[in-house]
Amino acid sequence: MTERILVTPADLLGDGVFETLHLRESGPWLLPEHLGRLARSAALLDLPPPPVVDVTAGAGRTGAMRIIYTRTLLHVGVSAIPEQVLRERRDGVRVLSAGLGVAAGHRPPWSLSAAKSLSYASNFAARRWAARHQADDVVWVSLEGYVLEAPTASVVWLSGDELCTVPPAEAGILDGITAAHLLSLAPSAGLRPVHRMVTLPELATADAIWLTSSLRGLAEVISLDGTERPRSPWTPRLLAMLGFTDSF
Amino acid sequence: MTERILVTPADLLGDGVFETLHLRESGPWLLPEHLGRLARSAALLDLPPPPVVDVTAGAGRTGAMRIIYTRTLLHVGVSAIPEQVLRERRDGVRVLSAGLGVAAGHRPPWSLSAAKSLSYASNFAARRWAARHQADDVVWVSLEGYVLEAPTASVVWLSGDELCTVPPAEAGILDGITAAHLLSLAPSAGLRPVHRMVTLPELATADAIWLTSSLRGLAEVISLDGTERPRSPWTPRLLAMLGFTDSF
Repeated sequence: MTERILVTPADLLGDGVFETLHLRESGPWLLPEHLGRLARSAALLDLPPPPVVDVTAGAGRTGAMRIIYTRTLLHVGVSAIPEQVLRERRDGVRVLSAGLGVAAGHRPPWSLSAAKSLSYASNFAARRWAARHQADDVVWVSLEGYVLEAPTASVVWLSGDELCTVPPAEAGILDGITAAHLLSLAPSAGLRPVHRMVTLPELATADAIWLTSSLRGLAEVISLDGTERPRSPWTPRLLAMLGFTDSF
Repeated sequence: MTERILVTPADLLGDGVFETLHLRESGPWLLPEHLGRLARSAALLDLPPPPVVDVTAGAGRTGAMRIIYTRTLLHVGVSAIPEQVLRERRDGVRVLSAGLGVAAGHRPPWSLSAAKSLSYASNFAARRWAARHQADDVVWVSLEGYVLEAPTASVVWLSGDELCTVPPAEAGILDGITAAHLLSLAPSAGLRPVHRMVTLPELATADAIWLTSSLRGLAEVISLDGTERPRSPWTPRLLAMLGFTDSF
């Protein structure tokens, strides 16, 4: 049974913010970080600071928790994790790169590119485009040639002992919570966390590439622009470090 | 009393399309054109063709009619025209130009820039940015230096006897229904309809500039980037040609 919410017509214009969390037996994963980003996103949209979010809807459940906040609404919902998400975490993703037509260094002054806004039509469209081209996902490349992010994930890569991701402020992208958390754990695995801009040809030489997000955790890039990539022994190690199990 | 709609959480992610129509005593203005664009927008989002839209909600009423169409929902609502819209139609708008950070010639293959999608957060953000800078609205300029459109309007200008607007396909922008209708009427006013790309300095030399949209009709640009512009005698003539009166 699909959940229903009572909204105003204005709530349907994408003019709000949201967060998706991995709901674990221990509770919503990285809850303070997600609430922090919800507040930062809200500020970028000139929304009032979010009220206290009641997460008891998730008590005793596992799956996905979504927090939606608009000018008239705060909604917390819980659902099962889509089968596709579990499959991508387990089997990896075939990824195509595509120019976003956007200059990372010339965002407009009102840019919401660093906010997780509800205006997600282009994100879905990019993933549908990938599916039409026998791929699972896209990495967006700026007009300057820099890898930015994926429609619903951050890009993380391993280069020697460096575990890298794109610097959100410099790239004008969403600050990925899973990516930041993973990099904070890197030293415990003998890796050095690095934030740096990367071009697509540089990325292609990485020892491993992942898309990171709250529900997928890590989805290893097993093919980039049609070139197959060997599976990395780091994928199960890093997934375990993030506390992911196969079952949810 | 604000209208309420029952939706699914997925309906709140901006992944649908909409139209706003001027509801007149004679019925919804330019209804076939708006329904046509709704269908074109839906196709760009890979939505099924919209079902027949029942517009009886607008029978005998004037104001604004909004049609919203998502993967699970078709909603038709009627509301009063906001006071700000009537004011902008009557008094004109102070406009700032701003770079959109986007190359008109390098849209991504899944681009929705030609669709009237529900993902309107950036459109609202651009207008809030204008308001913070003592202006009413923004015209977006591409990285190549071409004027594109306004967040909720098309740009139309008069240069001698040429009534001009930006070619939607070439610019990768929404095809403005009011602008197209106005240009179709131009010959009856002794003007020649022209579609062409324009740079900001060229636009600034126009005899008159307007933002056109369904509810505002024409809003004359009375100030562009801080430079005052004389009122054009064409504004009341063109408004009358479009059938706008002061009262709604």
